[in-house]
Amino acid sequence: MNDRAKLTALAERYVATRAATEALATGLSDEDQVLQSMPQTSPVKWHRAHTAWFFESFVLGPAGIAPIDERYAFLFNSYYDTIGERVPRAKRGLVSRPSAREVGDYRRAVDEGVLALIDRVGDDGDGERAESLAQIIELGLNHEEQHQELILTDILHAFSEQPLHPVYRTGAVARTTASPPCRFLAFDGGLVEIGAPPSGFAFDNERPRHRVFLEPFALASRPVTVGEVKAFIAEGGYHTPTLWLAEGYATARAMGWEAPLYATCDGDGYRVFTLRGWYAPSDDTPASHLSFWEAEAVARFLGGRLPTEAEWEHAAASVDALAAGRWADDGVLVPLPVASEGLGQLFGDVWEWTRSGYEPYPGYRIAAGALGEYNGKFMAQQNVLRGGSCLTPRGHVRASYRNFWPPETRFQMSGARLARDV
Amino acid sequence: MNDRAKLTALAERYVATRAATEALATGLSDEDQVLQSMPQTSPVKWHRAHTAWFFESFVLGPAGIAPIDERYAFLFNSYYDTIGERVPRAKRGLVSRPSAREVGDYRRAVDEGVLALIDRVGDDGDGERAESLAQIIELGLNHEEQHQELILTDILHAFSEQPLHPVYRTGAVARTTASPPCRFLAFDGGLVEIGAPPSGFAFDNERPRHRVFLEPFALASRPVTVGEVKAFIAEGGYHTPTLWLAEGYATARAMGWEAPLYATCDGDGYRVFTLRGWYAPSDDTPASHLSFWEAEAVARFLGGRLPTEAEWEHAAASVDALAAGRWADDGVLVPLPVASEGLGQLFGDVWEWTRSGYEPYPGYRIAAGALGEYNGKFMAQQNVLRGGSCLTPRGHVRASYRNFWPPETRFQMSGARLARDV
Amino acid sequence: MNDRAKLTALAERYVATRAATEALATGLSDEDQVLQSMPQTSPVKWHRAHTAWFFESFVLGPAGIAPIDERYAFLFNSYYDTIGERVPRAKRGLVSRPSAREVGDYRRAVDEGVLALIDRVGDDGDGERAESLAQIIELGLNHEEQHQELILTDILHAFSEQPLHPVYRTGAVARTTASPPCRFLAFDGGLVEIGAPPSGFAFDNERPRHRVFLEPFALASRPVTVGEVKAFIAEGGYHTPTLWLAEGYATARAMGWEAPLYATCDGDGYRVFTLRGWYAPSDDTPASHLSFWEAEAVARFLGGRLPTEAEWEHAAASVDALAAGRWADDGVLVPLPVASEGLGQLFGDVWEWTRSGYEPYPGYRIAAGALGEYNGKFMAQQNVLRGGSCLTPRGHVRASYRNFWPPETRFQMSGARLARDV
Amino acid sequence: MNDRAKLTALAERYVATRAATEALATGLSDEDQVLQSMPQTSPVKWHRAHTAWFFESFVLGPAGIAPIDERYAFLFNSYYDTIGERVPRAKRGLVSRPSAREVGDYRRAVDEGVLALIDRVGDDGDGERAESLAQIIELGLNHEEQHQELILTDILHAFSEQPLHPVYRTGAVARTTASPPCRFLAFDGGLVEIGAPPSGFAFDNERPRHRVFLEPFALASRPVTVGEVKAFIAEGGYHTPTLWLAEGYATARAMGWEAPLYATCDGDGYRVFTLRGWYAPSDDTPASHLSFWEAEAVARFLGGRLPTEAEWEHAAASVDALAAGRWADDGVLVPLPVASEGLGQLFGDVWEWTRSGYEPYPGYRIAAGALGEYNGKFMAQQNVLRGGSCLTPRGHVRASYRNFWPPETRFQMSGARLARDV
Repeated sequence: MNDRAKLTALAERYVATRAATEALATGLSDEDQVLQSMPQTSPVKWHRAHTAWFFESFVLGPAGIAPIDERYAFLFNSYYDTIGERVPRAKRGLVSRPSAREVGDYRRAVDEGVLALIDRVGDDGDGERAESLAQIIELGLNHEEQHQELILTDILHAFSEQPLHPVYRTGAVARTTASPPCRFLAFDGGLVEIGAPPSGFAFDNERPRHRVFLEPFALASRPVTVGEVKAFIAEGGYHTPTLWLAEGYATARAMGWEAPLYATCDGDGYRVFTLRGWYAPSDDTPASHLSFWEAEAVARFLGGRLPTEAEWEHAAASVDALAAGRWADDGVLVPLPVASEGLGQLFGDVWEWTRSGYEPYPGYRIAAGALGEYNGKFMAQQNVLRGGSCLTPRGHVRASYRNFWPPETRFQMSGARLARDV
Repeated sequence: MNDRAKLTALAERYVATRAATEALATGLSDEDQVLQSMPQTSPVKWHRAHTAWFFESFVLGPAGIAPIDERYAFLFNSYYDTIGERVPRAKRGLVSRPSAREVGDYRRAVDEGVLALIDRVGDDGDGERAESLAQIIELGLNHEEQHQELILTDILHAFSEQPLHPVYRTGAVARTTASPPCRFLAFDGGLVEIGAPPSGFAFDNERPRHRVFLEPFALASRPVTVGEVKAFIAEGGYHTPTLWLAEGYATARAMGWEAPLYATCDGDGYRVFTLRGWYAPSDDTPASHLSFWEAEAVARFLGGRLPTEAEWEHAAASVDALAAGRWADDGVLVPLPVASEGLGQLFGDVWEWTRSGYEPYPGYRIAAGALGEYNGKFMAQQNVLRGGSCLTPRGHVRASYRNFWPPETRFQMSGARLARDV
Repeated sequence: MNDRAKLTALAERYVATRAATEALATGLSDEDQVLQSMPQTSPVKWHRAHTAWFFESFVLGPAGIAPIDERYAFLFNSYYDTIGERVPRAKRGLVSRPSAREVGDYRRAVDEGVLALIDRVGDDGDGERAESLAQIIELGLNHEEQHQELILTDILHAFSEQPLHPVYRTGAVARTTASPPCRFLAFDGGLVEIGAPPSGFAFDNERPRHRVFLEPFALASRPVTVGEVKAFIAEGGYHTPTLWLAEGYATARAMGWEAPLYATCDGDGYRVFTLRGWYAPSDDTPASHLSFWEAEAVARFLGGRLPTEAEWEHAAASVDALAAGRWADDGVLVPLPVASEGLGQLFGDVWEWTRSGYEPYPGYRIAAGALGEYNGKFMAQQNVLRGGSCLTPRGHVRASYRNFWPPETRFQMSGARLARDV
Repeated sequence: MNDRAKLTALAERYVATRAATEALATGLSDEDQVLQSMPQTSPVKWHRAHTAWFFESFVLGPAGIAPIDERYAFLFNSYYDTIGERVPRAKRGLVSRPSAREVGDYRRAVDEGVLALIDRVGDDGDGERAESLAQIIELGLNHEEQHQELILTDILHAFSEQPLHPVYRTGAVARTTASPPCRFLAFDGGLVEIGAPPSGFAFDNERPRHRVFLEPFALASRPVTVGEVKAFIAEGGYHTPTLWLAEGYATARAMGWEAPLYATCDGDGYRVFTLRGWYAPSDDTPASHLSFWEAEAVARFLGGRLPTEAEWEHAAASVDALAAGRWADDGVLVPLPVASEGLGQLFGDVWEWTRSGYEPYPGYRIAAGALGEYNGKFMAQQNVLRGGSCLTPRGHVRASYRNFWPPETRFQMSGARLARDV
């Protein structure tokens, strides 16, 4: 494919990804879109604007194109110290102006600018410039996909805090056939490679690809299920300190955790508030909205442990046929039970907490400039999650993909998968 | 006036007051109306709904009229424990549903119900019932007027927290002629009466009317001005502990106060963010957005003190011609300098902090039932303010009217007036 | 009595008061004396040093006598901004040096200096100087008596926080005969005078004596009792919001109050931790360690209300034979039931919360200099208590004496007495 | 060596280690010993008692010996949920009873019990029992050594919070000769082994020994110095977000960090409060009292990075002659400059932060029972430090030894050493 064709394909992907973001906001009122229900979440409108701001700051600005509105640089910067001042994170929900409609206008103006720029660069015939433009746009689209997932997790949280518990998408969840029993698949380990290869798109935190030594281990054929979490609750797991890491138990007690986030477990059984409203998952459904602390405790309760991220990635790479689960594009928006044999749903349905702290790979260097702030400065006090979820856009996640959140995080679509020493 | 005529007049006043509330929301987008910028403020939409809920709970409900929406009792209760559970105050800003439009529908439905009820009771010819209905509706209208002022103070705070600092009402503030110099008007004191007389509308906290003994005192002819606050700032008042009450100074330092709320005082002079945007008041403008702590310190700096509420009320009652200042209906929305001689602007422009803690009058009893929660349960840890402000609806305030806020409150249109011992 | 004789008497009283402070520390180890169990309390050693510092700062320093240790001015200043910097209040418990023994040396050095000064001034024959010295020493002794009570309240709190619950003074509390039933004594009110007369020692906050108008009222013949608090607990008073002021109820729930401080009320009955260890008071014992919030709620529960401070003082002044209760000098250290008829134990046993906020009397002016910081700067957000307690030194309290604490305070020996409108 | 001889040697070591703890308390008053200056530190008296409690709980109790005082199990348990309830950590400083003297008695009683037990088991000739006893005593002695270091770090913090800044040990610090310049020593990496071998004493978190793959790297010949930190300060490092991890910078700004803990850097140069009082270290002195956040930022400022714990351990194991620095037994109590060539002071002087989060080694399993709570439950949200310090008892630390603290910790004797990719 020549540069011109590549750029045309890129433009098509740009249009599709940007439209997908707007589609997520469909059905949300202006009032819904301004809600910020806790400092860790952002309003839907802010996500829509910030992803436009990203293209404006890193694509249009460097190309010499004047800002659409000078004030937006301050309003929609997320955390780039290199770029300048910004609205404090916890106050994003106070920004009623510009309106949701004006943010739509902003997005369209950015789109016109980006598409015109792609066109112009395609006309240039300057291969190096085309390559450089393609790279930064590809990063912007991957960035936008991350915010697509956040739009879903954040509106779920905002709706969960409302007395009337609005439903984001209507329609019942389809019943599934029963899951095969859980098995443990063994891996030999040894000196293996993990991380993204040098070519092709990947985030900087996935590189460099490097060698790690793994002891033999086994990985469960499916994520931890609702039935297993129910057993943990029933046997007093939330009140048994010896099952927990010390800080995890202190957090659970201080916060009064008695079940995963959005879940109630009482006389009426196990019910979860989801983007489809209240929902009673079957016992073989992957458990979701677990913190790392809970995932670690449940794993110990079940006689296993969480895998390291190297074990997880090695397993993901060495298995031929991965039966992937739900992605956001499927529109299901809740995890469903594993239907297949083998290493089921290693991708999709629920992110899987690993035992690994989020640290730089050997030889990793933080890039210069604002993009250097993308991943590297968060490499402490967080844990790595792998595999994507039913709220992740299809195609966004790879075997080497490293998601990361503080261990107390529960509002993400986060679950767990057991590992064992062999 | 017979019952029927009284009820007709009441219906007219009901329609006018309710319409005035809606007029305040004109020009605010749905997103503006859902903002809650701190726990002490509420969204405009919430004020609109809560004032409707008041009529539904205390007028329509007791008359046997079914709730318009069962869920609204929970959503729009403010603090009535007798009525039942409610949304935590700090989470009112998360209620995107019902929408601003649906709240408008709710208000209209309540209005239809109330007006129909007035009509029905008028037809009845049951004088006692008419009287009882008129009383509760009058309370509801006075309650609604209080929330009209809160709509203005709360949206000002919400707009002040936004990076783009939206303007609520456009149009410059008219220049005024220079103020006459400040004088102190003497009062003999002695055994005087304060409080509302038994008949006519007043809040329960204004009663019973009772005797208090006052030493001779003098009261300033105008409120503390911007020029006086500038002198306080310039001479280091915010950093001079001996000018302050101990807890006031601790609060000022902990919060980093260097000027009244919404004000900046630097090389560009004294500027205030108002409902008309940024504005540079002249030195003889009444200072606004002072906490009780600041008012007390500025008074000491100026060689005076704050009056007690009995002194204030006695002065207000014993002066023939009170030149009242601005009310909300005038549409100015900022305080303006005193133009007249005598006790200027004792009413309107800015609420005036008194030295008096908010306590029950002798013989005061908290009423039974939910309405008993209206005032009495807040009688501690607050200070009394008197006289109304440029954000108060005309006619709402009397000489005996007692407003009250915690001493650290600054987001109200609060100022001060000096008193002196004679 | 001539100046010389007055000064001799003053020297005797000085010696006795200073010795009484040291006697309170008898039996406390050096480790006990350094404890600070919350920011509102101070270590015993600090009280011993601070009261010496007071004489050094306000008596010896102005007389030109060099400081005993330059560093103590910083260490043992309580809250006098005029004097200079000081150790943050919450960190007084970290001061292991100087030691308890060195503080004893410091006290003795101050005593020598003060007694020598009294002697010298007596020799002078300068009557004005003698008078001025006598006044400031009298203030210092009254100040020291206040800290004597604080030594007892603070060590009680520190011991209550220890797992082994040490006992401050051993020996059982003597049984008392049954109390006569509670009666309400009526007072006519009218225009009465309260406050301290111009001559004789009193704190500045008790002056000027002034007129207040009182409606007729009645006052209970004894304080609220343990039996009444048990009824309040048994009938769910701690969980009935309509009995409380709003902020009181919020505090009670946030703090998890289910009984007064130091009290447990369960299957084993009502037990209180006291300076004599755990103790089961009889039902007719005055209830102690109530906050203002609890006192106000219990009063409402019992169909009464708290008196204003003017009512209390008027009653105290107009009753001939006041049967006073226990003082600290009696060594009982816990309140005991009222044995007499009439207005029993208006003084002693337990401080009595009044409904009155702590505000300046008409004409009150804060004195210039450091002593002006003694009382006036605390006149907000506190409530007045009257009458002294079983931990107050005999002779310290007058009818006009105004004690004051924030309404949530419970570690003082604070109770309540009912009033009623007539 | 036969069992009897081994036990005799163990008894000798027991006596010496226990005496060393008491020697650290020499010169501290009873008041000094009860101080707790923040929740993360403990009173010296508590350390003395807790280390006795450890032997009582894990040696004497299982041998059927009755508790010396039933109440001490509650008082001196640190964090063993399996053992039972305990004093909240932040309230250890409120325990004035038992006294420092009584804790001395307690320690002696425990010593008698342990030595008698060793003797009895030696007489038994039961080799298995002797081995088991020796193992738990060895753990107890290593545990006690850890608390010896904490006694020093905690009293330093308590003294730093006191206005008079007491000096723990008097006597000036000896001047040292100039350091050789810093060099980077290269290591090839590859598949190496780290962790403690199966035999010999080591903590459970050092095992199992296992293989890791290392890329080539280089390690600095000495720790980061005071001179380097001064340059970091002078060039605005504390206010340059791009040098820091995001959470580190947020912490630094929220806490107002401008220099390492205990250090001031102003016109008077760089001065540090130490156990020998205020002290001006030379520029080539290892910097101390750095948090992980600061260590990481300073490393980036200097063009390096922190080593991983595997790199550090590999370097420590593969270098023949390690010139170790100061240990607590040397009595210097402050770090001194590196005098030698080669990998200087990898051990002693200052602990060295690594980039590695504290996680379990492959195959690590938490032991059953209370001892399982020793290390494993803290394996999250902390970073590993290596090498011991001038406050660590000689002989306590190995190449495989893993110390760990949260990244914001600064009151430990913590420094850093640079690594580089090759």
